[in-house]
Amino acid sequence: MAAAASLRLTPFSTLRFLSFFPISKPSYSLFRPLHRRVLPLLEGYPSNARRRCFCTAVSESLGSGEGKKVESNYENRFGSKVGEFKRKLKIAEVKGGEDEGLGRVGQSLTIKGWVRTVRSQSSVTFVEINDGSCLSNLQCVVNPDVDGYDQVESGSVLTGAAISVQGTIVASKGTKQKVELKVEKLIVVGECDSSFPIQKKRVSREFLRTKAHLRPRTNTFAAVARVRSALAYATHKFFRVNGIIWVASPIITAADCEGGGEQFCVTTLIPSSHEASNSPIDAIPKTKGGLVDWSKDFFGKPAFLTVSGQLNGETYASALSDVYTFGPTFRAENSNTSRHLAEFWMIEPELAFADLDDDMACATAYLHYVVKYVLDNCKEDMEFFDTWIEKGIIQRLTDVVEKDFLQLSYTDAIELLVKANRKFEFPVKWGLDLQSEHERYITEEAFEGRPVIIRDYPKEIKAFYMRENDDGKTVAAMDMLVPRIGELIGGSQREERLDVLEARLDELKLDKESYWWYRDLRRYGSVPHAGFGLGFERLVQFATGIDNIRDVIPFPRSPGSADF
Amino acid sequence: MAAAASLRLTPFSTLRFLSFFPISKPSYSLFRPLHRRVLPLLEGYPSNARRRCFCTAVSESLGSGEGKKVESNYENRFGSKVGEFKRKLKIAEVKGGEDEGLGRVGQSLTIKGWVRTVRSQSSVTFVEINDGSCLSNLQCVVNPDVDGYDQVESGSVLTGAAISVQGTIVASKGTKQKVELKVEKLIVVGECDSSFPIQKKRVSREFLRTKAHLRPRTNTFAAVARVRSALAYATHKFFRVNGIIWVASPIITAADCEGGGEQFCVTTLIPSSHEASNSPIDAIPKTKGGLVDWSKDFFGKPAFLTVSGQLNGETYASALSDVYTFGPTFRAENSNTSRHLAEFWMIEPELAFADLDDDMACATAYLHYVVKYVLDNCKEDMEFFDTWIEKGIIQRLTDVVEKDFLQLSYTDAIELLVKANRKFEFPVKWGLDLQSEHERYITEEAFEGRPVIIRDYPKEIKAFYMRENDDGKTVAAMDMLVPRIGELIGGSQREERLDVLEARLDELKLDKESYWWYRDLRRYGSVPHAGFGLGFERLVQFATGIDNIRDVIPFPRSPGSADF
Repeated sequence: MAAAASLRLTPFSTLRFLSFFPISKPSYSLFRPLHRRVLPLLEGYPSNARRRCFCTAVSESLGSGEGKKVESNYENRFGSKVGEFKRKLKIAEVKGGEDEGLGRVGQSLTIKGWVRTVRSQSSVTFVEINDGSCLSNLQCVVNPDVDGYDQVESGSVLTGAAISVQGTIVASKGTKQKVELKVEKLIVVGECDSSFPIQKKRVSREFLRTKAHLRPRTNTFAAVARVRSALAYATHKFFRVNGIIWVASPIITAADCEGGGEQFCVTTLIPSSHEASNSPIDAIPKTKGGLVDWSKDFFGKPAFLTVSGQLNGETYASALSDVYTFGPTFRAENSNTSRHLAEFWMIEPELAFADLDDDMACATAYLHYVVKYVLDNCKEDMEFFDTWIEKGIIQRLTDVVEKDFLQLSYTDAIELLVKANRKFEFPVKWGLDLQSEHERYITEEAFEGRPVIIRDYPKEIKAFYMRENDDGKTVAAMDMLVPRIGELIGGSQREERLDVLEARLDELKLDKESYWWYRDLRRYGSVPHAGFGLGFERLVQFATGIDNIRDVIPFPRSPGSADF
Repeated sequence: MAAAASLRLTPFSTLRFLSFFPISKPSYSLFRPLHRRVLPLLEGYPSNARRRCFCTAVSESLGSGEGKKVESNYENRFGSKVGEFKRKLKIAEVKGGEDEGLGRVGQSLTIKGWVRTVRSQSSVTFVEINDGSCLSNLQCVVNPDVDGYDQVESGSVLTGAAISVQGTIVASKGTKQKVELKVEKLIVVGECDSSFPIQKKRVSREFLRTKAHLRPRTNTFAAVARVRSALAYATHKFFRVNGIIWVASPIITAADCEGGGEQFCVTTLIPSSHEASNSPIDAIPKTKGGLVDWSKDFFGKPAFLTVSGQLNGETYASALSDVYTFGPTFRAENSNTSRHLAEFWMIEPELAFADLDDDMACATAYLHYVVKYVLDNCKEDMEFFDTWIEKGIIQRLTDVVEKDFLQLSYTDAIELLVKANRKFEFPVKWGLDLQSEHERYITEEAFEGRPVIIRDYPKEIKAFYMRENDDGKTVAAMDMLVPRIGELIGGSQREERLDVLEARLDELKLDKESYWWYRDLRRYGSVPHAGFGLGFERLVQFATGIDNIRDVIPFPRSPGSADF
């Protein structure tokens, strides 16, 4: 950089002498155009020079290079202005419009991305690049007279390499796309080692799970990531427009009222580093009785990862009326299935002055909203899923948006299952929980693919906090069942009557004292309230058709697996 | 409910005979108006009857009551339609407009909320209620002829009680508000025990930390919650409109490349329930050598809570170009200060094809955006903070939005500090990190309250992944300093050159093998990229003026404290 720095002084030095500003500047030199790019990015680079492997050299042109560096001479010690944030031009913007890019024909532009395919013909090379902004690649037409063509000849332009291409948008002669880029200048930003595991040939999703750091470079995982992000945004937007406030429920909790069985312990007692050899059992603080001495732990008592933010959500709903949480939750359940994760994201709204009907209505409106958002905003990705992952998914989701959801009571659902001409693996009997096969029968067959809400479950199979119905046998609980997934949403009206809640805690032999703050909510201005929980990854599965839940979260955690 | 159910049959039975629909219905009886509320909520209730304490009885009118229940007779076993989601009318909607509610004068409406104050005069009682939708209370004028006035007389209408009021909006004679509600009917939804700790008199924030479940019922904590939610939403929106994709970085990680020192261990090895007596040391699996047998743990090796999602974010930026994370991160740091939390939320964007200048520009644009969003959308709460928490905060934030941010190099910052006529507690010398006192001097005094970005720090005091500048001494790192907080944002361009990165890992004696997947990113299409991290709670402090970080997160976690 020493050489570059001395070169760089020239234009600024000149500018300084020609400047209208006095030599003795005010302490904030805001108006000096120091930060402007003196040279367009690509022009500053001697493109016919051979580059070193792995983008070391290219960083001189793309990195903190020429003309962008703050000068560090005395006169500028009081700082210069931070530059304006400019969005990179992305392929989604070029090809994403209604006209698929035709409106840009004739425009000169630069795109940066990763090579997906290279097809060399005698006189021309077609390079498809993708920048992750959309499913579509940009087809780049590279003729031998292109500045930087030597990099094509030397074999640097390979699948996986990062390149920057400057050129003109032209109408495409191909049928696969409306426009393509006639390249004028090409720079390999970062080469790709030939061991790159994501080649054009299709690789299994099982294999890709071992390459979680590279799998977003495939069509499927990139599309899932985009749809997942859109679903998250739509979630926040739905709640925002409805005046429902986001609350961060705690992740670590020492509250005694969380269920103990399937929780991860969070501790600093074990002197663990990443070296197993540094974890002698003897170093764990213990009491005289040979028990773990929790008083020495970070929180002074056993602490765990949360399984749900609901109880905390209720405290805020009892003040702000309507709130929701959206954060990670955890289960230390030893089930290695395609339906379970040890770490997953959950959305849990809680509405005050609301009953089970309001709750069901909210859950329904929510699902309508986010599904419609994805259908409207992720068209290309949804078409990809429809073609490659689940035929008919767009129609299935359109049905969800357009058709009414139905509700029926658990009692009626049991009757329906009993009368169904169907042999189930698990027994169907009032008082037993519905199994996945039952749920899927109801939503997929009995209701022909329509989401169904089952409500008013027997209280014995539901949680202590659910509001007892007047029949004394059922609680105001609801599960929303959807095709393919089964239960997507589970919710309930909460028991707001202190005496009923306490009787229920006693009945279940739960320690009332542990619930002191939860009971306080019923002691001070208690209101009927209701909420639901939605496993976000289940929603992503529902919206993409991906059948294994480990493929809809970037870095899945399950028994024996927490890499990356 | 048995009695109610028999009553309920009457109208529907009649309806059924009068129905135009055939008795043998199609299997989806979507169009029968079963779900409609037969009676408006308040009218269904005999309001002059004395209510039982703690809202047990009122739930009959507000809960899953009359006319809302799905019939469970045979004909409806195929379900009925789920009702439409209706937002509750909230005080923010009544009083939140430009006219502060004057446009609603004459309207009849119902509001539900919690009593803040009750002032009884000879002929009239003023009850202020709040529903958490905004800072403002709704002043309710209750005359003795109001339906439900007996509840005022009997002393049920107390601070903290939940009530439902129906009445007419009238222009207020008072000066504190433009409109008030002339009550026609009042129901106590949930009484409030006289032990309610949040009375009108001001209580300390220290005390309220022990009542984390009730503190959102105070003006301060409710305002913080609303501003916090607005900041989160603005964050998601800023990234969405800029084509930056939300990625969930993992919370639990067994990746060896995370720093070991200040991490919480996540384990299922200790047979812990919430009963300390169930945690004998002997039950922890151990190897013959007396070490903890990590192979028996849930993940088969030591696992920890993440301290940052950055490295994971880089993997997705290397595929999707621009991503951000927004999730909880953890530090098992034993510092019990007003600036530290063991659990806090972090925002970490990562931009591909970007250098440090792009990074600074993005951080600046981001801060501008979210601060402007709060100024525009949380006016009343911001005025509250300006009056009660930090005088002048609106002007301070307006400056942030309107004035340019400045940048200067670390080297220049050291020079500035050395030349400052100021005695600092910590030494100022090139090569030493800046302390809080230095940062605050720079942003608060030298730059008179303007945010400043310091860049190009000595590599010895920064992380291994930061890109080495061409001087060989500094790295392309930046810290954004803001008044009151000091460092709000820290970021860097990442080292994208494999050879330089590996040399740095060697230099720091870090295990290269552990970083196999991180190095892979540099092997396969590496690109210049940059990102930053922002502690969300610091941002909330910055935007609200609240000085203790434990008061800007609903349930703070710190040494010895993980209750609720």
